[in-house]
Amino acid sequence: MRMVDEGLELLTEEQARELLAGGEVGRVGITIGALPAIFPVNYRMVDGAIVYRTSPGSKLSAAVEGAVVAFEVDDYQLADRTGWSVLAVGVAKVVDDPAARSRVTDAGLQPLADGRRNAIVRIEPTFLSGRRIVHDEQVASA
Amino acid sequence: MRMVDEGLELLTEEQARELLAGGEVGRVGITIGALPAIFPVNYRMVDGAIVYRTSPGSKLSAAVEGAVVAFEVDDYQLADRTGWSVLAVGVAKVVDDPAARSRVTDAGLQPLADGRRNAIVRIEPTFLSGRRIVHDEQVASA
Repeated sequence: MRMVDEGLELLTEEQARELLAGGEVGRVGITIGALPAIFPVNYRMVDGAIVYRTSPGSKLSAAVEGAVVAFEVDDYQLADRTGWSVLAVGVAKVVDDPAARSRVTDAGLQPLADGRRNAIVRIEPTFLSGRRIVHDEQVASA
Repeated sequence: MRMVDEGLELLTEEQARELLAGGEVGRVGITIGALPAIFPVNYRMVDGAIVYRTSPGSKLSAAVEGAVVAFEVDDYQLADRTGWSVLAVGVAKVVDDPAARSRVTDAGLQPLADGRRNAIVRIEPTFLSGRRIVHDEQVASA
């Protein structure tokens, strides 16, 4: 078991990719006017990339075009102190190509909020990492 | 009802502060080596600021000292397409003062992961905003 920090196991890239593929709500970390910001989005993995829908001209389409952004997914159960998180970092692009847009639409990606969210943003993960909480008894038996 | 974007209601600062105070797991957006990163933390609100515990020298203490960081909390129910998110932006500081450290310890803040997470980081929100999903029928009746 490879530890990233005390009490945190570093996941393999394959494990991270699997958890990322199974998630539904993630958070995009971007910069707006030199200030950091994080916004949640409903996403899918399509052709190995993170895709989400947003309004054209919104912070989540205009501000990310061509930018290197962070994308995070996690799942924590506070009651038993378990959980994991996955971090992807990559360049975000607005998807214009009709064939690529169709593949996203076919994946059944629906934004949670109403409105004309017909801008599709795609983040190709260049770096992918994940960590999972492990408690001492798990480390001892590994 | 003030809309921030189609389908998203802008919360008042008071509503955002209340949701922030009620959360347990949030995400910190930082920059490491010029790349954006987002990591989840277990947090509390103490004296009007976000506080979390981490390992001394970890990414979440060293990289944030004196930096302007983003902090996000959200809660989504995918089944009925409801949810909200709160974004705080402010300067992060490692808490050294013993009295201030005691107030954090008294607040019962326990990190989810094991290990010597005795560095306490404090983020004083300079900007605080929140948004909540609203569907057309709610807008119509507001």
